[in-house]
Amino acid sequence: MSAVLILGIDPGLIRCGWGVIASEGSRLTYVAHGVIKSPPQQQLASRLHDVFEGLCAVMGEHQPHEAAVEETFVNSNARAALALGQARGVALAAAARAGIAVAEYAPATIKKAVVGAGHADKTQIAFMVRRLLPTAGEVSADAADALGVALCHAAYGGFHRRARV
Amino acid sequence: MSAVLILGIDPGLIRCGWGVIASEGSRLTYVAHGVIKSPPQQQLASRLHDVFEGLCAVMGEHQPHEAAVEETFVNSNARAALALGQARGVALAAAARAGIAVAEYAPATIKKAVVGAGHADKTQIAFMVRRLLPTAGEVSADAADALGVALCHAAYGGFHRRARV
Repeated sequence: MSAVLILGIDPGLIRCGWGVIASEGSRLTYVAHGVIKSPPQQQLASRLHDVFEGLCAVMGEHQPHEAAVEETFVNSNARAALALGQARGVALAAAARAGIAVAEYAPATIKKAVVGAGHADKTQIAFMVRRLLPTAGEVSADAADALGVALCHAAYGGFHRRARV
Repeated sequence: MSAVLILGIDPGLIRCGWGVIASEGSRLTYVAHGVIKSPPQQQLASRLHDVFEGLCAVMGEHQPHEAAVEETFVNSNARAALALGQARGVALAAAARAGIAVAEYAPATIKKAVVGAGHADKTQIAFMVRRLLPTAGEVSADAADALGVALCHAAYGGFHRRARV
């Protein structure tokens, strides 16, 4: 099989979305998706490890060849950036542990690749993810974002794979 | 042996400092210290995994019972907070992987515990770390900060261990 399996990740501590698609030429197929949740009452370190372990398990099960995450939009909220950074750090480390290169895409690039417009909102992303991957069934917002990043990588991967990360 | 082995971590992507001390009653003994560096030319994900693996190796070798990190001072620089968050995330996840609880201490608390004044500068921390742990020998700034956090945990651990994280 010459299909490339792509793992998209939407890192987060409360909810870490992930989605796997297969890209074979111009054909895109849905493989799997899910959301890793960590109990809020646990210690921060333990929750971060849950995300790390959860993603390691996903990669162990689905054996993706490549991974992609959204480039983080750094706004003025440093506290939120620190929290997101912590979840993002373990997601990236988990991919590296599996020996998978991680590409990063700007939000506007993902929107353009999935919806055709750089200013699309999240609802449109979710709508197009369901259209492009009809066998995915019901997809939560976090997993839709993750599948969106994977779709973007399938579209732009050849260009960005080496340059961006 | 009833000594408690404490691992202090100063998370960072370019340089992640660590230090282990043994605390037995009021007696504090230096055990080991070091700095984990990741090659800047590598991919971010791979570097984060280097930090994770490096800390896992340190914990595997020294088998600390408890760990401590500095509570991150979130200033207005969101980009720096994101970068620090990524390194911090893998450090916390590595400790959780080893089954070690991680305490967090505010910078002022660490300074007060090590130097006796909450407004002490880094030079004073390094000076006192060398005074309190004379067998440590030459200690770089990152490792001195890590040993400082470990000393703080030895001093305040009983109080803060459960409350802070």
